[in-house]
Amino acid sequence: MYKDKLHTIINAMKEENLSQLILTDPSNIFYLTGKWIYPGERLLALYMNTSGEVKLVINKLFPQSEDLGMELIWYDDTEDAVERLSHYVKEGRVGIDRTWPAGFLLRLQQLKKECSYCNGSLIVDHVRMIKNRKEQELMRKAALANDQVMEKLISLVGKGYTEKELNRIVKELYSESGHQDVAFEPITAYGKSGANPHHVTDDTKGKKGDCVVLDIGGILNHYCSDMTRTVFLGEASERAKEIYEIVKEAQRRGIQAAKPGNRMCDVDFACRNYIEEKGFGDYFTHRTGHSIGIEDHEFGDVSLANTEIIKPGQCFSIEPGIYIQEEEIGVRIEDIVLITEDGCEVLNQVTKELTIVPLEE
Amino acid sequence: MYKDKLHTIINAMKEENLSQLILTDPSNIFYLTGKWIYPGERLLALYMNTSGEVKLVINKLFPQSEDLGMELIWYDDTEDAVERLSHYVKEGRVGIDRTWPAGFLLRLQQLKKECSYCNGSLIVDHVRMIKNRKEQELMRKAALANDQVMEKLISLVGKGYTEKELNRIVKELYSESGHQDVAFEPITAYGKSGANPHHVTDDTKGKKGDCVVLDIGGILNHYCSDMTRTVFLGEASERAKEIYEIVKEAQRRGIQAAKPGNRMCDVDFACRNYIEEKGFGDYFTHRTGHSIGIEDHEFGDVSLANTEIIKPGQCFSIEPGIYIQEEEIGVRIEDIVLITEDGCEVLNQVTKELTIVPLEE
Repeated sequence: MYKDKLHTIINAMKEENLSQLILTDPSNIFYLTGKWIYPGERLLALYMNTSGEVKLVINKLFPQSEDLGMELIWYDDTEDAVERLSHYVKEGRVGIDRTWPAGFLLRLQQLKKECSYCNGSLIVDHVRMIKNRKEQELMRKAALANDQVMEKLISLVGKGYTEKELNRIVKELYSESGHQDVAFEPITAYGKSGANPHHVTDDTKGKKGDCVVLDIGGILNHYCSDMTRTVFLGEASERAKEIYEIVKEAQRRGIQAAKPGNRMCDVDFACRNYIEEKGFGDYFTHRTGHSIGIEDHEFGDVSLANTEIIKPGQCFSIEPGIYIQEEEIGVRIEDIVLITEDGCEVLNQVTKELTIVPLEE
Repeated sequence: MYKDKLHTIINAMKEENLSQLILTDPSNIFYLTGKWIYPGERLLALYMNTSGEVKLVINKLFPQSEDLGMELIWYDDTEDAVERLSHYVKEGRVGIDRTWPAGFLLRLQQLKKECSYCNGSLIVDHVRMIKNRKEQELMRKAALANDQVMEKLISLVGKGYTEKELNRIVKELYSESGHQDVAFEPITAYGKSGANPHHVTDDTKGKKGDCVVLDIGGILNHYCSDMTRTVFLGEASERAKEIYEIVKEAQRRGIQAAKPGNRMCDVDFACRNYIEEKGFGDYFTHRTGHSIGIEDHEFGDVSLANTEIIKPGQCFSIEPGIYIQEEEIGVRIEDIVLITEDGCEVLNQVTKELTIVPLEE
């Protein structure tokens, strides 16, 4: 168990006047224990309270070889797991993880009518948003490994593969380079596919002049990477070049705005305002980014609605884009940034200079 | 919307004295609408009551081209989706789907304090357990398509592939034959891998004399298949042959017990009792089977604990096995059966005669 993280969460509980918390999301349990236990439909619950009691209710099917630094409450499939958990829950308010299946919560509410229940996830979300030194190192490593996959991928986009083939190759590249999995379904979109934000990977092949949107990420040591580059096949029209440079400059401005004291919405505004100034505001149809860590999308959007102040240790994506379906032009550029004391470190290193890949088909 | 299914559910609600039900599991919504809508982290909720009101609360991101035969309540990401849903919920008891994330339920409870909430999934589970004619036809088709994948797979197990390679090939076979996906991660386990029920697919290659456990299933037209065959590489020891024949006979007895009027536990007992009589009871370490349909594992186990009476239209697996890790012997044989008026139809046709595959490496 990571005592420092636990301590931070318990302090946050005290500030919120919440004396008990039941964490059940595998990512939250991994965050506190360093163990990824995926219980399927079975109960896995970390109970904690502000008096410092911490107990993990866990099925015997998931034996633990190491000491997790907390009391383990074992149950088997013949037992009522929630009933076991309920013995530790005290009268009062109980915070619940937002992803806990209702079947469990309803049973707990039936057993412990004297308690009141609330969504407790935000407390952990805020703690997870700030990466500690070890996590920062893991985020750097994940991003660098992703850079390498991206470099290989860019060297392959001109070789005549269909999107589906390229997609399969990306997955193999992640697997070969020691990733546990992809962080999300890769996007390898040629021409009009990349210009359509709702495109689903298909048998499209690249043709001369296509923008190719490559949005990929892996999971390395349980931490996620995520980046986008857009390259051109054989040639790029003047119009495409113009749009590329606008997105590149917008992203640069977003990176400049990503520093402590600014708000998350300031990063979005920096990108969006520039794209609007250039007359393409209607074609930037999504938020600028999202927080990232153990999960690809974590709490904390980079959007106009998020007015929270940026703090050192945060990790998020900056990924403006312009998509003009009728012209078959789609450009997105994305890096992960790590907020430092006075600015941010850009974790991805793959060039953002306009790149034309020879078409070898 | 399937009016007959809706009618059956509303009748079951009346019998259980439950006037309102909120279904949120995509599989339940598919069951009633014929549309598979996967909302990710967004709310998708089918509200119904015994007065016949049916409303689907759905995000504008998931436009529907067809008339679903019910009122659609559209919301967008700027709105409180649960608040929209709450307008339709009346005072009284409300059944909730067991997989609904707690974040939504807690919000509804906050908004509608005058209601009481219970797990309503069992009502739909029982209705879904009985397949109608159209579903029976889909289960037959899925099983036949699975037979074809299994035949191809058996022709490949002697060719020197590792388990991981074989696994990837199986996935491609499903994709090529029009399946939407695999129904579960395929098991392609050589020798001691197959003898270990907790084995994870690795780089093991087959060797002479290995039992090879092949447990595979796909999703075709949204209905699942699932079957297991065990074949031998090059040769089979007398001991392995003996065990194979015991499992085969146990499975035959299970199939014989699968008929209306018997209980689900009778099917388990028929398999288990025979294996115990032959002295291998300690090596049959799991339940005999599970119901299947839109999901690979549906409500209704084939286990000693399930005393429910079997009814025509049920579909479930019968899959006894014997696993002796110290001897590197693992054998499991599985078919899906469909309960008829007076017995059952075995949906899988791949031979269960002991099969020795030439080892070509």
